[in-house]
Amino acid sequence: MAVYTHVPAEEMAELLARYGVGALRSFKGIAEGVENSNYLVEAEGARFILTLYEKRVDAGDLPFFLALLDHLADRGLPVPRALKDKDGVQIQTIAGRPACLIEFLEGVSLSHPTPAQARATGEALGRMHGALADFAPERPNTLGLAGWHDLAGRCGTAVDEIAPDFSKRIADELAWLDARWPADLPHSVIHADLFPDNVLMLGDRVTGMIDFYFACSEIRAWDVAVTHSAWAFSSDGRDFDVGVGKALLEGYQAAHPLTDAERAALPVLARGSALRFTLTRTWDWLNTPADALVTRKDPLAFLRRLDFYAQHPECFSA
Amino acid sequence: MAVYTHVPAEEMAELLARYGVGALRSFKGIAEGVENSNYLVEAEGARFILTLYEKRVDAGDLPFFLALLDHLADRGLPVPRALKDKDGVQIQTIAGRPACLIEFLEGVSLSHPTPAQARATGEALGRMHGALADFAPERPNTLGLAGWHDLAGRCGTAVDEIAPDFSKRIADELAWLDARWPADLPHSVIHADLFPDNVLMLGDRVTGMIDFYFACSEIRAWDVAVTHSAWAFSSDGRDFDVGVGKALLEGYQAAHPLTDAERAALPVLARGSALRFTLTRTWDWLNTPADALVTRKDPLAFLRRLDFYAQHPECFSA
Repeated sequence: MAVYTHVPAEEMAELLARYGVGALRSFKGIAEGVENSNYLVEAEGARFILTLYEKRVDAGDLPFFLALLDHLADRGLPVPRALKDKDGVQIQTIAGRPACLIEFLEGVSLSHPTPAQARATGEALGRMHGALADFAPERPNTLGLAGWHDLAGRCGTAVDEIAPDFSKRIADELAWLDARWPADLPHSVIHADLFPDNVLMLGDRVTGMIDFYFACSEIRAWDVAVTHSAWAFSSDGRDFDVGVGKALLEGYQAAHPLTDAERAALPVLARGSALRFTLTRTWDWLNTPADALVTRKDPLAFLRRLDFYAQHPECFSA
Repeated sequence: MAVYTHVPAEEMAELLARYGVGALRSFKGIAEGVENSNYLVEAEGARFILTLYEKRVDAGDLPFFLALLDHLADRGLPVPRALKDKDGVQIQTIAGRPACLIEFLEGVSLSHPTPAQARATGEALGRMHGALADFAPERPNTLGLAGWHDLAGRCGTAVDEIAPDFSKRIADELAWLDARWPADLPHSVIHADLFPDNVLMLGDRVTGMIDFYFACSEIRAWDVAVTHSAWAFSSDGRDFDVGVGKALLEGYQAAHPLTDAERAALPVLARGSALRFTLTRTWDWLNTPADALVTRKDPLAFLRRLDFYAQHPECFSA
């Protein structure tokens, strides 16, 4: 959410020349995305995003992400492709970091989505899953059930400073999920992080799905559960929006119907999603100095979602 | 250099409607300027900067800054005006903060300016000073000689952790400047912070002068000294670029000739400039946690400039 690496104007101009996209007119470092440096770059008559991959994205994973975006864009999904330079190269080195010049997509990320906007997002997610049926590359999910156990172990009892009995709550939930985690649902490459931040919209239309850097091979319906937990609550997790939750599922079903087994598993998958973000936010909370200028996201916002899902499994019923 | 205040898309759309500048198409938080939050905002066919003023800018000073920008823009200088909404209002309240929607100017900030680019910047500075001859409003400079004494006192001997005998060096320099600071040079409102960061260029043309939030009433030639110390050295202060320094002064003289007294005072003013940035950077250094995600600027980069100016007063000779 910051610009970690400064790119001199002179180097930016040389980079654009390599792509033959017109002369540099302007560029601004933007506060966006996971821990990468991003610039909004303007050439004569066209705009781009330049992303420099900092340590959180493994450079070895970049070909997977770029192939995924190309695959989805080829099938008409609104995702930003990485451009190829005159020599056909997609991954450059800028200021010592792997970097890509990426298509700019219009649209804004919503803070308070309506049911109509949630429906459009559900539909876009369903279309994405449809388009991924024949996408062969795989990438393991390091933040699946085994990863949560690992993260919970590394957080230890330090979490009890955040909320009383928090470590016990996490352990109990992990045991509950271990006993019920579905073993035979359809798998696919999924986005795995489709928060409102990562969807660009104009009115009720999805104009962009971005930030695929958590994309991985997983239970496909888990993507639906993650999107549900990200969209259907107020950001602090205190309020569930029935209309938004329902519209999101309806939109998804219209584009890519859930199997009966997937539908039946949603209450468990949603608890998994709430726990996954509780754990990663808790880890970041414990490891970010309180006075750092990055905003630490409240780990309890997803614990509240977990409470809701535990008490309201019926929220996924038709 | 970060986005401190989040503006929801829904609120951004309402704001644009107030200006009648077309519907919102995109907006991105940008990492720019002093400690404000800035967004690059796109409406149908036009771009703007939305600035939210955080605590470092006193809201009471905003009318001064906006009048200054209007005055300069009226006289053809490339500075960004704050727009007026349909009711003629320039200063809005967004997310509890004073905010202005500001014209977007093309151009890029240079990291390695050439003599031709320095000449154009000197000229633009001279034209700005010419245009300010009939600008009546005043704003005191809190970072003048008295302010440096105050800042040096507050830093105390903690600075000796940064470099040996640093506090003595500062005290000696303050005494040297006290004895020589010119009393009767022409005063004017000045930019006071015209670093390469704050000048937008396309090729050798100045397309924008921005970030007037240090503008104040001061010895006019001090602006020339500040600009010289900001432009004519490598950023670490180790290398002086004779050609850039000379071109900057020539450009300024072509647009707004220095008086003999101003010219004679430049070596003293330049030492003042080098000390001013040494002190503010030192203060920020001592008061920014080492692990914060803001880059602390090296205070010694301007101490090196001070050494150079002390040893080479002739660098301002014709």
